[in-house]
Amino acid sequence: MSQPEVRAWDARTGRWGDTLAHETSAGELAEVVAVAQAAWAELRGLDRSARAALLDAMAAALEADGERIRALAEQESALGTARIASELGRTTGQLRFLAGVVREGAYLDAAIDRANPDAVPPVADLRRMHLPLGVVGVFAASNFPLAFSVAGGDTASALAAGCAVVVKAHPSHPATSIAVHEALVRAARETGLTNPPVGMVFGVDAGLDLVRHPTIAAVGFTGSLGGGQALMRAIQERESPIPFYGELGSSNPIVITGSAAAERAEAIGDGLARALTGGAGQFCTKPGIAFVPRGEAGDRLLAAAVSAMDAVGAQTPLNTMIGERYLAAANEAGARTAVRTLTATPAPVQERPSVAPTLLEVDAADAGAWVFEEVFGPLGVAVRYDGSELDSLLQQMPGSLTASVHLGEGEPVPDGLGELLALRAGRVIVDGFPTGVAVNWSQQHGGPFPAATTSQTSVGAAAIGRFVRAVSWQNAPEQLLPVELRDGAAGVPRRVDGVLVLP
Amino acid sequence: MSQPEVRAWDARTGRWGDTLAHETSAGELAEVVAVAQAAWAELRGLDRSARAALLDAMAAALEADGERIRALAEQESALGTARIASELGRTTGQLRFLAGVVREGAYLDAAIDRANPDAVPPVADLRRMHLPLGVVGVFAASNFPLAFSVAGGDTASALAAGCAVVVKAHPSHPATSIAVHEALVRAARETGLTNPPVGMVFGVDAGLDLVRHPTIAAVGFTGSLGGGQALMRAIQERESPIPFYGELGSSNPIVITGSAAAERAEAIGDGLARALTGGAGQFCTKPGIAFVPRGEAGDRLLAAAVSAMDAVGAQTPLNTMIGERYLAAANEAGARTAVRTLTATPAPVQERPSVAPTLLEVDAADAGAWVFEEVFGPLGVAVRYDGSELDSLLQQMPGSLTASVHLGEGEPVPDGLGELLALRAGRVIVDGFPTGVAVNWSQQHGGPFPAATTSQTSVGAAAIGRFVRAVSWQNAPEQLLPVELRDGAAGVPRRVDGVLVLP
Repeated sequence: MSQPEVRAWDARTGRWGDTLAHETSAGELAEVVAVAQAAWAELRGLDRSARAALLDAMAAALEADGERIRALAEQESALGTARIASELGRTTGQLRFLAGVVREGAYLDAAIDRANPDAVPPVADLRRMHLPLGVVGVFAASNFPLAFSVAGGDTASALAAGCAVVVKAHPSHPATSIAVHEALVRAARETGLTNPPVGMVFGVDAGLDLVRHPTIAAVGFTGSLGGGQALMRAIQERESPIPFYGELGSSNPIVITGSAAAERAEAIGDGLARALTGGAGQFCTKPGIAFVPRGEAGDRLLAAAVSAMDAVGAQTPLNTMIGERYLAAANEAGARTAVRTLTATPAPVQERPSVAPTLLEVDAADAGAWVFEEVFGPLGVAVRYDGSELDSLLQQMPGSLTASVHLGEGEPVPDGLGELLALRAGRVIVDGFPTGVAVNWSQQHGGPFPAATTSQTSVGAAAIGRFVRAVSWQNAPEQLLPVELRDGAAGVPRRVDGVLVLP
Repeated sequence: MSQPEVRAWDARTGRWGDTLAHETSAGELAEVVAVAQAAWAELRGLDRSARAALLDAMAAALEADGERIRALAEQESALGTARIASELGRTTGQLRFLAGVVREGAYLDAAIDRANPDAVPPVADLRRMHLPLGVVGVFAASNFPLAFSVAGGDTASALAAGCAVVVKAHPSHPATSIAVHEALVRAARETGLTNPPVGMVFGVDAGLDLVRHPTIAAVGFTGSLGGGQALMRAIQERESPIPFYGELGSSNPIVITGSAAAERAEAIGDGLARALTGGAGQFCTKPGIAFVPRGEAGDRLLAAAVSAMDAVGAQTPLNTMIGERYLAAANEAGARTAVRTLTATPAPVQERPSVAPTLLEVDAADAGAWVFEEVFGPLGVAVRYDGSELDSLLQQMPGSLTASVHLGEGEPVPDGLGELLALRAGRVIVDGFPTGVAVNWSQQHGGPFPAATTSQTSVGAAAIGRFVRAVSWQNAPEQLLPVELRDGAAGVPRRVDGVLVLP
């Protein structure tokens, strides 16, 4: 039986193009995994410095092919020139940032407890550090065709840990995926590797085969709640459990206090509109719900948001299915009892999918759990509240990647609110908007379910921690120990006899 | 419907005693969890120093009640006076060790990336550290009535992280569990807590209700593969996934090279016998399989082991069911084709359960995957090999807590063996035996499935990492930040603008 074709797609026009590949068969998948396993064995032979050089080489290769990659990503995502250029910068930036994290070596968590033969009973020499998990599966996301795709954060952090990767490409941008994969493979070859440390497969079935494959040691996924749950079920049926690092859905609530609205109604409204419509509302950190105080200042805030959203007009979604789902979800929410649609409905665009930036308004008394449901696209719900209503509404808040609060000048955080937000979200933001996720040491991109399926982060230095396991060596000769655990200067932070020592 | 009774049990005589409690009903379980949730809110109000003091107070309370606790544990486990005394020392020691880890604060992984308003786009201040997960469930193990039970490693590391705990007590030592729980509750009250941070429930159904309870944020378990898999299935049916830290089963293979056997046959044989029969073979790190070279030196090694095991004679298992299962498994293994039983069979002990230390021998050519199956009790399998057979045998090795190799004086580790063992085990031991698990910074007590269900450790400083999640604060005022993330001296290791800084 021949496999379905993978065809080129122009998100800007809604037109299909040439056949680029075919969906990966079970037999082909097994071959891709076998190559990745061979690559993993090769990676185990590289020291940290060589692995960091591999990440740097990948960043350079993406830049060398940047013009072609950007053109394809623009065509396939309709996200526009500026956004795609900055996304490529972020993608190469995070490869290089993680190369630096690997060079620094604190992620190894290296520890040495030296022998104490005089103790009763005698204590043996014990040394511990992190090793790579093995070959891991990564599922590319639709909404970041570069930064959360083939060479995205999951791939970069798995490679940084020393793992080989098999990526399940996203069907929304196959040509971009192929171009990025070619650059990664070339960089690996130039670095002296025989087997490419990143393999790639296409198709839903191949994705399921991938997570079921006994060689796969972990899975990274960014996508929908439904898609993530389907993979989670497949993983649960495995003989040996593996971690599923899924980032599934997030409402990213924003609380605006009365003082904040009174002081900065227009600025906050404008910022809200930008956060709702950026990337056509297809950010995982899009603020889907804003708690806006009742009264005149809140009215002004929303008027500013509506005016900015109406000025944006119809936007182009990543693909037709996303556009159709958005339309259905926005209509369903807008048709609920006591829900008012504040934005105008722009005329639909001819012959291509389009989505309308939509701001809904509902009184706190009429708001149900539905206000926290994520809608992928430029839809926001403003819940109008008076002071005392906020707490009971927030008690219904599911796990979220982020939670934000806008305060008046010098206004303290309302009692209990700071703790509540930190209990429900991975990142708590003050006087800002959640879109824009810095790639650094302090980033937590995760949060209680359904924001994420584990307590890990998928962005930043700590993302490497998802792809390692620790091993201890007891009474081992130098020959058996990783260089970072041998006596003498190791060049990495280490804990020696309980004391953390910097190199 | 009244709940089944929980009765006292004397493992030394095999006799049942008074009713101590009843199995926890679903309604009672909900109450216990609610109290733990209130305790968790209280714990969030303690700073690290107060939390460390709580752990220290618990250790002191266990010591204050030590005489009574030791007597009950000896009666219920039949593990003997010396072992129980040292286990109580280990239990209080690990509470105090983890108190030190909390005071030191590196486990917080605190990081600060300061704002850069001049960057394009501007970079916001971002700060990240670990917070406790919430209320966690802990399943006590049978084989360490103190160190892996109510106040054991899982409870201690969860409390150290700042979590409240609900323990599912093990039915093999209910009186010990009640006495230990009383000491913990008293220590918490003396530390000023209103709600005890450790609750306790009895019964298999209560255990299942516990892992299904929506409040429970993680589960720690040490026990059998079957029991662990039943809990894992229940957890997989939850609406929101939670981590299951299970330590399920381990073969702990030992490889003895020809040189090692030639040089130290008797010493290694004697050590093997001690490791096989210590705690009546009921250690999770009991070496269930030894690869012993064919020939005279190997024969001497096994003769020494057999002589030492025969001298030990019949041992008392933790409970009747363990004794019966051991007998069945030992008989099944001994009856396999080409398997020889080397040890003598001691006369069964009158009127109480007993198990016979048993050493089986099989040629490499006749050894199947069964040799790696864990048998709980003093059973070992010696696989006789010649050099080239070792590799293919070890390729069949499942994940294990430990893997050991005994080398000749100055003999290098055979090619590939060191890497293979580190791929399959959590701890690699040279010239030693796996029993005896140090509680320190370098310990890794875990390993690929089925040794553990995740890549975490359940012993040592890093065990705390199982019970935390990270939160980032963006542009947050001091008031909102945990003290460890505020400007100025924090007293903990922190990464500031990418640079690790010691206090």
